[in-house]
Amino acid sequence: MESKAALNENDFLRNLSRKFRRSPLELNNFLESDAELVKLADGSVLALTTDSIVEEIATGLYDDPALIGWMTVVVNLSDIAAVGAEPLGLLLSQNIPTDYPPELLEALQSGIAEACEAFGVFVLGGDTNQSATLEMGGTAAGLIKSGPIISRKGAKPGDLLFVSGKMGLGSAFAFSVLMGGPSQIEYRPVPKLKEGALVRQFGSSCMDTSDGVFPAICNLMEINGIGFEIKLPFSEIAHPAAVQMATAGSMPSWFFLAGPHGEFELIFTISPEKEATFLQNASKMNWQPLKIGVATDYQNCSLDIQKGRWDLNPFQISNLFTEAGGNPKAFLSALVQKQSSWKLPQ
Amino acid sequence: MESKAALNENDFLRNLSRKFRRSPLELNNFLESDAELVKLADGSVLALTTDSIVEEIATGLYDDPALIGWMTVVVNLSDIAAVGAEPLGLLLSQNIPTDYPPELLEALQSGIAEACEAFGVFVLGGDTNQSATLEMGGTAAGLIKSGPIISRKGAKPGDLLFVSGKMGLGSAFAFSVLMGGPSQIEYRPVPKLKEGALVRQFGSSCMDTSDGVFPAICNLMEINGIGFEIKLPFSEIAHPAAVQMATAGSMPSWFFLAGPHGEFELIFTISPEKEATFLQNASKMNWQPLKIGVATDYQNCSLDIQKGRWDLNPFQISNLFTEAGGNPKAFLSALVQKQSSWKLPQ
Repeated sequence: MESKAALNENDFLRNLSRKFRRSPLELNNFLESDAELVKLADGSVLALTTDSIVEEIATGLYDDPALIGWMTVVVNLSDIAAVGAEPLGLLLSQNIPTDYPPELLEALQSGIAEACEAFGVFVLGGDTNQSATLEMGGTAAGLIKSGPIISRKGAKPGDLLFVSGKMGLGSAFAFSVLMGGPSQIEYRPVPKLKEGALVRQFGSSCMDTSDGVFPAICNLMEINGIGFEIKLPFSEIAHPAAVQMATAGSMPSWFFLAGPHGEFELIFTISPEKEATFLQNASKMNWQPLKIGVATDYQNCSLDIQKGRWDLNPFQISNLFTEAGGNPKAFLSALVQKQSSWKLPQ
Repeated sequence: MESKAALNENDFLRNLSRKFRRSPLELNNFLESDAELVKLADGSVLALTTDSIVEEIATGLYDDPALIGWMTVVVNLSDIAAVGAEPLGLLLSQNIPTDYPPELLEALQSGIAEACEAFGVFVLGGDTNQSATLEMGGTAAGLIKSGPIISRKGAKPGDLLFVSGKMGLGSAFAFSVLMGGPSQIEYRPVPKLKEGALVRQFGSSCMDTSDGVFPAICNLMEINGIGFEIKLPFSEIAHPAAVQMATAGSMPSWFFLAGPHGEFELIFTISPEKEATFLQNASKMNWQPLKIGVATDYQNCSLDIQKGRWDLNPFQISNLFTEAGGNPKAFLSALVQKQSSWKLPQ
């Protein structure tokens, strides 16, 4: 579900699914979990998710077949990570043009195989079709044998907001590719499987940033009826590559959190009383999650942007990409306009 | 995987998957089961399958959006039926053009919802993408709580060959649509879920006829290193609609078993000593499976076609569709040529 404004896609999905009855075995509500959670008879929970790479290929964002293969695995496994499940494996659905060059097909499959090796997951099977353009679909399954479940829903005012790592790499990569410059940005995201398994034990809500940071924040706000006060300055949240690009292009670094192409980190909430134990366990696995803010009972998001605090409606920003017709340059112009109309600092 | 010669697709898939390591939890070998069978910790088995409808839409075979929606459910649930699993639910992956008319989108979703209601299954979740052409993908999950598993592998010489119902409706429908005549053929296949669950208890191998009857026979022959002697005359195997079309078009009715568009029945083998108990159980559920032949230790397939017995190499026939470039008229011409070169009777 990358490269789209999350909320507009959600509206579209909601409309599509009006006619479908929900399974009594499904533990999450519609659109309230990165992966669907299905209760099995023995008390364990099956996590299932499907995600495709279509627009990323069509727009030229993903051009390198090895990256396309790698990302086909990542987009699906990242949803399994966000619910803290143990991966069972992956199904592939490859729509391949008949005239797709054999050496690119080879590189595409190598990208898939390399990602599977790197993450310790397996391709279980799949399907191929002949199509006009290359489109890669996948499905991942995971298992939660015991313990709590986690989804996008469950955050309460007062809960602490964490991210699994620095943010903005996905947008920095997208800007560098789509704005025409030679891409200097190394982009090979890794699904946060071990981190997600720990977050499931202690967290109150979790999702990945596959659609970008602001869209993720919007989702958590909307589903939980809360807001967020982001306390950490953006300079400390943003990935060095995003900071560097922002500086070079004279753009505010928060632009790189607004774009709908993410870095596949996790964003999650934890109640204050569980913070210490969570951080001890994270430290044991050499992981330093970033505490970026706190959940509030007013549905807004306030940010510390260089020269002061600013109240934002992140929905307005996350919808900009769709309003800009999915065009990155138009999106950037719209961001600049928003910035000046809101009198946000550079 | 419809509308393709199964074996050529298998070669393609085999080549693609060279680089992928198999999961130690997977019980079936690659391409040897309609659904992937994954062992869970409690001894139960998860069945997973993914299948898309791409070529059927591109060629105009499926034009009615309600049929496209219905078939998106069928192609996936039929694979769950072929391994005798209990369905857990369905994920959808819908690639939809931005200018796809709202009333067609509505009909498409209604087709999905109607199929789910009819088969007692649920849409668990899904993903949408914007694409140049409409393409519908799905994933189905099912569970085998206990008892034996069944796949395409396991048939032995002497085993009896059954089909779940009369064959040829899929090809009759395809011929009627693609050869230009107004389609008089009612085509709303139903996955044989209950039948598959029974076959799993007694059978030695099973697959669905989603890719047609000859391709299915080829698959079972190749995987099991066996052949088949088809004893029942084709007139008794063929669906009335196929017989009627064959008569009207002066075509041999076996043509309608050769096409790569199937009717989603099951084709399966059962050892002779289990036949009686199997048939008793089938009768209790008001199901009359058709015994069409017997497995042999020579890898060929002999058929009773009206005026006598004929030895066929069904691989040659099932590859014809690919050799004909996927063109139904060219495929029909190739069939006619084969018939005359082999001196098969009308």
